[in-house]
Amino acid sequence: ETSAKVIDGKAIAKQIRDEITEEVSKMKNAIGVTPGLAVILVGDRKDSATYVRNKKKACESVGINSFEVRLPEDCTEQEVLKFISDFNDDPSVHGILVQLPLPSHMNEQNILNAVSIEKDVDGFHPLNIGRLAMRGREPLFVPCTPKGCIELLHRYGINIKGKKAVVIGRSNIVGMPAALLLQREDATISIVHSRTKNPEEFIREADIIISAVGQPNMVRGNWIKPGAVIIDVGINPVEDTKSPRGYRLVGDVCYEEACKVASAITPVPGGVGPMTIAMLLSNTLISAKRIHNFQ
Amino acid sequence: ETSAKVIDGKAIAKQIRDEITEEVSKMKNAIGVTPGLAVILVGDRKDSATYVRNKKKACESVGINSFEVRLPEDCTEQEVLKFISDFNDDPSVHGILVQLPLPSHMNEQNILNAVSIEKDVDGFHPLNIGRLAMRGREPLFVPCTPKGCIELLHRYGINIKGKKAVVIGRSNIVGMPAALLLQREDATISIVHSRTKNPEEFIREADIIISAVGQPNMVRGNWIKPGAVIIDVGINPVEDTKSPRGYRLVGDVCYEEACKVASAITPVPGGVGPMTIAMLLSNTLISAKRIHNFQ
Ligand SMILES: NC(=O)C1=CN([C@@H]2O[C@H](COP(=O)(O)OP(=O)(O)OC[C@H]3O[C@@H](n4cnc5c(N)ncnc54)[C@H](OP(=O)(O)O)[C@@H]3O)[C@@H](O)[C@H]2O)C=CC1
Ligand SMILES: NC(=O)C1=CN([C@@H]2O[C@H](COP(=O)(O)OP(=O)(O)OC[C@H]3O[C@@H](n4cnc5c(N)ncnc54)[C@H](OP(=O)(O)O)[C@@H]3O)[C@@H](O)[C@H]2O)C=CC1
Repeated sequence: ETSAKVIDGKAIAKQIRDEITEEVSKMKNAIGVTPGLAVILVGDRKDSATYVRNKKKACESVGINSFEVRLPEDCTEQEVLKFISDFNDDPSVHGILVQLPLPSHMNEQNILNAVSIEKDVDGFHPLNIGRLAMRGREPLFVPCTPKGCIELLHRYGINIKGKKAVVIGRSNIVGMPAALLLQREDATISIVHSRTKNPEEFIREADIIISAVGQPNMVRGNWIKPGAVIIDVGINPVEDTKSPRGYRLVGDVCYEEACKVASAITPVPGGVGPMTIAMLLSNTLISAKRIHNFQ
Repeated sequence: ETSAKVIDGKAIAKQIRDEITEEVSKMKNAIGVTPGLAVILVGDRKDSATYVRNKKKACESVGINSFEVRLPEDCTEQEVLKFISDFNDDPSVHGILVQLPLPSHMNEQNILNAVSIEKDVDGFHPLNIGRLAMRGREPLFVPCTPKGCIELLHRYGINIKGKKAVVIGRSNIVGMPAALLLQREDATISIVHSRTKNPEEFIREADIIISAVGQPNMVRGNWIKPGAVIIDVGINPVEDTKSPRGYRLVGDVCYEEACKVASAITPVPGGVGPMTIAMLLSNTLISAKRIHNFQ
């Protein structure tokens, strides 16, 4: 019985934050510019507030300036657009992030499209996704979570070129861009989704599996090719009476079974999760460097 | 021994041109507007001149106005950009097409990006490709050749949803958008390219095969699952001493072998080929309708 190497996202994210800290300080010393990230939060969802707080803390930890705007649930789309427009023009802001979901009376597409493509550190603008899909074009930003998945593969020295990769899930923010990224690195990709009959037939062939579904323990041990590498993006709460919170978080992949078959696997939590914010910081730094033409 | 149904692209393209003729005439009668397509040809490549002539003829055949600009090989990028800008502003032009390849001293990306996205009937603008890739977004135009492939499947009543589809080739103009289109219709897609080891392993599983490679007879009969549907985009000249021209055209799929295994297959020529121009006319009509808000 083999045991998979654990891909330690927490440790890699820490390492990346340290690298960013150093680069931010170099940039400040050389040209006097500090990268800045603006976050717009509308309404008072608790989970959104937590995400925004974590992003702010992460910025502080690496020396990136953070700017926060909180607007009430009942503010108008115009007000949000005004703040975006001001941040677009503000030279101390290099990245703009609108925390989703927005209140239902707002047109999410209008608001996201208002963010200047040069400051769209989330990388969700269709122009950016188009460039990601096209050979010979370069996106300005790669969406954070899929970028984090690929970064984990790179940092663990896992070869992508010529490998069979399956992506489970095709969402705009994770699955689809993850598949495009794998293809850019010359993997042969298959994309499984809710309309796929017998997903296990695809998964069993894959050397690399990226799962972003949101179904606890969907991928079973016997769906996995021996030696495959598994990046589990899913974060799913399941009841757990032994936990003080009454639940615990699990991935899309049944970890206990998979770790006996795979050659490497990300845990949940502590795998892809910590990478997403690290990539947001990385994108903000990249943006500041590009705007100020600093290598 | 079974024999595949032949997917008659020539007949379908004729049928589509007839439908377009009727709609063009309806539009003219109702609001006095005739759709117009502008084609810019730079240099004097013989093949490009032929393509442009065919497009012009096709426009005439359905009642679409065509505008042609021919510029010498040694003209400047600025001159081409000036014509594009004029067509962008010209209300009688609803589609603009720059015939590729451009002379090597020009920046193709600059020139293509100058075409107004509302008139980009080729559908190659990254903003358009991004929308094609994203759920919940709609491209303004679907690139002609892949649109023609899907149209053939539709017109032959071939079910796409839930099917396993393989696309061979990942070019910006055929393979990649074809895969995105199949996925939008809920196929499970795999994309095979030159770095894929053992492409036959993927192809053998597929219910639908779209091939856009440019390798004569690459896909053999025993690579095909019995009953699969084959859309062969490849147009490859092979030596043929019996032909007066000294060559004939074949697809990427070995037709003689494949037609004994597949349930349906496009011939080369006469399959996807005639569909591309029909879809260009369709995109031009769509554009005119959209600009004039005509249903
Ligand atoms: N930092 C991080 O680590 C992040 C983690 N996540 C987590 O990743 C997971 C996915 O997130 P997200 O992409 O936003 O989710 P979405 O709900 O937007 O997308 C889920 C995708 O999974 C597909 N799917 C659903 N059920 C099945 C099934 N039974 N078999 C195969 N495919 C299925 C859906 O298919 P269809 O398209 O047909 O509906 C869809 O494409 C969640 O658990 C989320 O919490 C998300 C973002 C960041
Ligand atoms: N109207 C019509 O019917 C049209 C027909 N065509 C025809 O379609 C074909 C493809 O055109 P186009 O997409 O522009 O071509 P490109 O040359 O741009 O792309 C070819 C694709 O095939 C892949 N490929 C090359 N060799 C192999 C192989 N041995 N195994 C698997 N994949 C391979 C390449 O992989 P990689 O990306 O790794 O290099 C690439 O993605 C041509 O024959 C062309 O004439 C094209 C446009 C319109």
